[in-house]
Amino acid sequence: MAFVPNSIITLTTDFGQDDPFAGIMKGVILSVNPNARIVDITHGVPAHDILAGAMALQSSCSYFPKGTIHLAVVDPGVGSSRRPVLAVSDHHAFVGPDNGLLSPLIQSQKGVQVFHLTEEVFFLKPVSQTFHGRDIFAPVAAWLSRGKDPESFGKPIEDWIWLHWPGPHRSGKGLKGTVLRIDHFGNLITNISLHDLSSRWATRDAIEIQIGEHTIHRVCTSYAEAKGGEPFAIMGSAGLLEISVKQASAAALLSVGPLEEFEIRFS
Amino acid sequence: MAFVPNSIITLTTDFGQDDPFAGIMKGVILSVNPNARIVDITHGVPAHDILAGAMALQSSCSYFPKGTIHLAVVDPGVGSSRRPVLAVSDHHAFVGPDNGLLSPLIQSQKGVQVFHLTEEVFFLKPVSQTFHGRDIFAPVAAWLSRGKDPESFGKPIEDWIWLHWPGPHRSGKGLKGTVLRIDHFGNLITNISLHDLSSRWATRDAIEIQIGEHTIHRVCTSYAEAKGGEPFAIMGSAGLLEISVKQASAAALLSVGPLEEFEIRFS
Amino acid sequence: MAFVPNSIITLTTDFGQDDPFAGIMKGVILSVNPNARIVDITHGVPAHDILAGAMALQSSCSYFPKGTIHLAVVDPGVGSSRRPVLAVSDHHAFVGPDNGLLSPLIQSQKGVQVFHLTEEVFFLKPVSQTFHGRDIFAPVAAWLSRGKDPESFGKPIEDWIWLHWPGPHRSGKGLKGTVLRIDHFGNLITNISLHDLSSRWATRDAIEIQIGEHTIHRVCTSYAEAKGGEPFAIMGSAGLLEISVKQASAAALLSVGPLEEFEIRFS
Repeated sequence: MAFVPNSIITLTTDFGQDDPFAGIMKGVILSVNPNARIVDITHGVPAHDILAGAMALQSSCSYFPKGTIHLAVVDPGVGSSRRPVLAVSDHHAFVGPDNGLLSPLIQSQKGVQVFHLTEEVFFLKPVSQTFHGRDIFAPVAAWLSRGKDPESFGKPIEDWIWLHWPGPHRSGKGLKGTVLRIDHFGNLITNISLHDLSSRWATRDAIEIQIGEHTIHRVCTSYAEAKGGEPFAIMGSAGLLEISVKQASAAALLSVGPLEEFEIRFS
Repeated sequence: MAFVPNSIITLTTDFGQDDPFAGIMKGVILSVNPNARIVDITHGVPAHDILAGAMALQSSCSYFPKGTIHLAVVDPGVGSSRRPVLAVSDHHAFVGPDNGLLSPLIQSQKGVQVFHLTEEVFFLKPVSQTFHGRDIFAPVAAWLSRGKDPESFGKPIEDWIWLHWPGPHRSGKGLKGTVLRIDHFGNLITNISLHDLSSRWATRDAIEIQIGEHTIHRVCTSYAEAKGGEPFAIMGSAGLLEISVKQASAAALLSVGPLEEFEIRFS
Repeated sequence: MAFVPNSIITLTTDFGQDDPFAGIMKGVILSVNPNARIVDITHGVPAHDILAGAMALQSSCSYFPKGTIHLAVVDPGVGSSRRPVLAVSDHHAFVGPDNGLLSPLIQSQKGVQVFHLTEEVFFLKPVSQTFHGRDIFAPVAAWLSRGKDPESFGKPIEDWIWLHWPGPHRSGKGLKGTVLRIDHFGNLITNISLHDLSSRWATRDAIEIQIGEHTIHRVCTSYAEAKGGEPFAIMGSAGLLEISVKQASAAALLSVGPLEEFEIRFS
């Protein structure tokens, strides 16, 4: 275990922007570690949507420097028996609820150890039943950023919760995929990676996508190649296939939301 | 007076996220004190809603370390004769309009002194009639964070404006309360504190709540205890009674908004 | 060229708050320069709206201290032949797409030099076709904040893109103007500056404004002067004429959106 904190703590939550909840967590962090550098990733994860929170974390955490602590709270089970956890690799640390939110990160890092947070000396007291972000996760992240040893916070566990991440699967003519998320611009971010398409991507003119009533024939390598008003497929910045419309919302044009299934056919 | 600034300045406003107003205040602060550490509490206070702004401040400021300066702007009277003020205790300082926004904080701290901000040498010039956040509050907060003595900014006053905070009152069978705010998750945050309920909370199975057409019989100590689709009462993280629905919006289910009145009956 | 970075990097984008895009850029910046101080101006520029992004930048950047780097991404042409650029004056630096977004700033600063960003050694690789904010603009801003010479990033250019900024023009009885933007409070921010009105502003009782079906006779110097429910004109905090309604939305009352034209008549 060689995690060395760099004083950066990121925040990813479903708290929205309009309540003081994220601000309260920042106050707690700065009260424990006045030198912490807090960076918002997003507070706009849809309420209670663990999959969307895990995607936000996974697409951003690798861009932060070694030694960063990622604090994440999408926590519909707060107050139940779900465990608070800390996951630590040489590179990064993650603090949050053991409900699958952190599992893609735990899987993607080498040599991760996961700890069940039980040492109440690091918590705010009394611990509420509704806001562990404030009472458990924020102070633990802050103490960790001050250099506390990960073992200080509780015992290692191995049975942390895995997230069911809908993967693509083979169909008769190609692959069946799922829309994971709609971004701010209305792009449909899917669960099909460049790796899933492999050599098919090289001959991408032979790809067609059936989504709802719509058949998409066009594959582009940049928005500039696309024609206005016409949906197209593109390899997005997170390394996942996206369906887009140039300067317009593909979600609105195609009437598609998260978890919609579609088929990619290779001819 | 022993306020010693710690370089943290928090921001609480009704400016929203889409205009550059909060960013402009940050620029002004950093121009005066390049070492200021600016922390957003929220910019999502409903426009002109002094009560909601006061609640956001009151529920968050105690979590910040000693020496923090809280800058708050919910300021429908900007450009009128309402005074700009600074309130300072040993622990915290508050800068904002004298319209009640700061009054719960002034009341809750010991040994607070309130100053009318009149020393224009600390203001941006010319002072606009529409954006004192930029021209008065931000530079004063920044100069204070650099160690300027609170007395430097103007004369002490004692007749600062009190906020009318709707309190609970006794009714025949219990208490009449008011919904103060709907949070991002649709929880109804009320004005009934644990203190108001006192020993009644211990025997909480005997509580029922009448709100609009709905009678709520269920009181929970965590979301996990609740049944889906059914409204329940819970003691929230701010120490106030809340009415919630598990993983859904109580506000939408019950068709309730801020300032709705309700009755708690003890049997 | 005497730009000396002060470690502050501001962000202005149309990314919204709900995706991790801005958080990813912050991670990239901090990976290059762990001492960078990142300040959000806004991520709420309307999607693809270069004029609105330019307004947000122009109204805020002068409030930041000398040596600040302003990173701006409103970039509908990402992946096309539009150039990534860096503009540097003694006072400030600007990094973003060459699509007009930065042009009001380039024009407003003295002695600005503009560089075409071509030195790929400073980019994240591979450079995506859809997210230059992450792959080009963020790392360039971060390297610049570490003290890299502006010349390091590419060759100077002089043919950067000018933004068509709708200006006021004379009409029979006065001036024709345009609503540039609706702010969070519903105020209509116009393209008429105090300079455009010049001596007419001194005798402002003789001004009337025709906008759509509405004729506005009232000009105020503060919100406090206004009557509830009645639209009025006021010189706003950005030095531009605004049309407002006291504690209500002028945009809603008058049914007016961006780019609506109106006439000011002097009598």
